[in-house]
Amino acid sequence: MIEVEVKAKIESFEEMEKKLEKIGAVKSKKEFQEDIYFASPIVDFAQTDEALRIRTTNNNTFITYKGPKLNREAKTRKEVEMTIESAEKAKDILEEIGFRQARTVRKNRQYYTYENFEISLDDVEGLSPYMEIEIALEGDADYSEAQQRIFRLFEKLGITEGFERTSYMELLENIYTS
Amino acid sequence: MIEVEVKAKIESFEEMEKKLEKIGAVKSKKEFQEDIYFASPIVDFAQTDEALRIRTTNNNTFITYKGPKLNREAKTRKEVEMTIESAEKAKDILEEIGFRQARTVRKNRQYYTYENFEISLDDVEGLSPYMEIEIALEGDADYSEAQQRIFRLFEKLGITEGFERTSYMELLENIYTS
Repeated sequence: MIEVEVKAKIESFEEMEKKLEKIGAVKSKKEFQEDIYFASPIVDFAQTDEALRIRTTNNNTFITYKGPKLNREAKTRKEVEMTIESAEKAKDILEEIGFRQARTVRKNRQYYTYENFEISLDDVEGLSPYMEIEIALEGDADYSEAQQRIFRLFEKLGITEGFERTSYMELLENIYTS
Repeated sequence: MIEVEVKAKIESFEEMEKKLEKIGAVKSKKEFQEDIYFASPIVDFAQTDEALRIRTTNNNTFITYKGPKLNREAKTRKEVEMTIESAEKAKDILEEIGFRQARTVRKNRQYYTYENFEISLDDVEGLSPYMEIEIALEGDADYSEAQQRIFRLFEKLGITEGFERTSYMELLENIYTS
């Protein structure tokens, strides 16, 4: 699967919730998500622009691999996400085969759906409010068109700046190391 | 979890099935198992005596890590096994993070239970008949006692030789490379 994803800083969740409801976006689940990111023993994922994480939500646990970004404007990249039995076992296996826990990102995420967009209002521990808009594409679909549609939706919601291509993990990294 | 496991060549499945029934072992599930073993980019698992595999059975898919053997007689080792959503996704993730598919082992396994033993009659593609007897231990339990009990059970079933410490994967490897 290819995910095309753009995020931007927003002023406030309350204001954005009103705008989303006004355009007819449908509020769906709210989730607490804890993401444990792993460092590879053979490459620096920050350099290769990849990510490997275990995500634990209210109801599920996943392993997710994200490939390098395919273009500059959006975060268009390969994503493989798989449900697993247990975060503890997955950590144990990954550590045994040479990976180590790097940073943990915790957030409350409110999902909205609108047309074929998935919209997330992200209250990330340690960061200001962000909104993420994503389209999932199968196979060889044209991602530049998907990307344009995402930017048009941001505009419709009054967001024309504050776009951020850096991941939450790296944003937190920058805060803690600066 | 620590598994203590011993396997031995047997003459025939039919004969052993009769012996198992005679001592009161209970026939349980029969499964087709396909195990894809992976090679690590940082260590030679044959040297470090570890294994990482994806097992697909009739009903489930697992990732399994096996640590180095802790003693010489039995295969006593750490094992972490986790149910996963999909073998395809797991392969994709493992390959993306640097692992590559090594050998595949396919077998029909007939399970028996007896006291706290798990007994397997293993019809491995490319190998002669084997029987495996296993005890799973939690934490710091004494594995030498478990090991002795396994060898006594083999003796009770008429097996006093033909013990094999090499994994099915390595046995197949030896055939193909000799």
